[in-house]
Amino acid sequence: MRDSYREQLDDILTDLGEMSQIVAAAVRSSTTALLEAEIHLAEQVIGDDEKLDARQSDIEARAFQLLARQSPVAGELRILVATLRMVSELERMGDLAAHVAKIARMRYPGIAVPETLRPNFVRMGDVAEKMVIAAGQTLVDRNVQNAQELRERDEEMDELRRTQFRVLLSDDWEYGVEAAVDVALLGRYYERIADHAASMARRIIYVVTGQFPENEFWPQP
Amino acid sequence: MRDSYREQLDDILTDLGEMSQIVAAAVRSSTTALLEAEIHLAEQVIGDDEKLDARQSDIEARAFQLLARQSPVAGELRILVATLRMVSELERMGDLAAHVAKIARMRYPGIAVPETLRPNFVRMGDVAEKMVIAAGQTLVDRNVQNAQELRERDEEMDELRRTQFRVLLSDDWEYGVEAAVDVALLGRYYERIADHAASMARRIIYVVTGQFPENEFWPQP
Repeated sequence: MRDSYREQLDDILTDLGEMSQIVAAAVRSSTTALLEAEIHLAEQVIGDDEKLDARQSDIEARAFQLLARQSPVAGELRILVATLRMVSELERMGDLAAHVAKIARMRYPGIAVPETLRPNFVRMGDVAEKMVIAAGQTLVDRNVQNAQELRERDEEMDELRRTQFRVLLSDDWEYGVEAAVDVALLGRYYERIADHAASMARRIIYVVTGQFPENEFWPQP
Repeated sequence: MRDSYREQLDDILTDLGEMSQIVAAAVRSSTTALLEAEIHLAEQVIGDDEKLDARQSDIEARAFQLLARQSPVAGELRILVATLRMVSELERMGDLAAHVAKIARMRYPGIAVPETLRPNFVRMGDVAEKMVIAAGQTLVDRNVQNAQELRERDEEMDELRRTQFRVLLSDDWEYGVEAAVDVALLGRYYERIADHAASMARRIIYVVTGQFPENEFWPQP
């Protein structure tokens, strides 16, 4: 770890960016595990979740140390407070990817998602992964432009979930209760990953501009 | 609002305690709305969720101001950092109660929970409410004794959810896919309320003792 206060703050932001890449990879792997019955990938996502927890603790401790020793004000205080929240959002996204992987593992060698909803889950996984990447990129770039992309993707996620419910609850559903329960929970997990990514991006915009975006899209802080 | 730093800090903790009482009441009301098809209660919980969001913003802003103006160290810094996390946990618990209320509203004048799982949901609602109360009490008392109670209740919540899945996925399930999906999501919402309460209590113990409890019960921070 480097010495100066500013360097330590930069290192924390770099590590948060790295953590968001790891989470994005976990989301992608868990989707592949789910749709291709790749048990090794499922085990890997579940095992790696502990490493994400350890990273969270480490980043939290360092942010807290900087708060305690440097008594930062204004912009730097905002960054540190936002860091504590973002690291916790990233840890939750990792948990949710692990939940997806656990359902994949539970149904192995079968596949939890019925064929009719496969394209829906391919999109959900893709949208969730891209939202995590965009949130991480917002952090690295401090660029509020990504907000528009996140908004559009979040709307797509909502639409994907509505489609799921229409298929699940139609009279044509022929896959039984177990598959319906799996799909409902999986849909919820992906939706929550998207929510956390949107919330994380929102915090970064707050850090950059000092204001929460005034937009009905953004969840309350 | 009072003037001195210490008084302002106390006021924040008092408000957090009040917020936890409001959330506990929302959990109780949403359970009644769900099990008794009380549409007015459902609407009330959904409407009140916005007020909880406003309380969160207010508490966050005040905690941030104290961080910025007072540069607290040690115990007081821990309290303020924990406050920012706890207020966000409480806001999430309020969201989850509103999710329960929305399912109640969607099925009105029917009842989303089939008769066979009614006792299970009565217990889930009760355990979730008591955990929120216990977490709030831990905050007010700064008493780590409540941890034992929270641990036992959290184990009961896990057991209640396992029972739900056994009933849902048994060959006897006669209530169809819609009820199964509702029950799976409702169970998830109650479980998450319990998780947040446990996590909140864990943070308070950290504030009081300076250490996270060493116990497999407690989720990572």
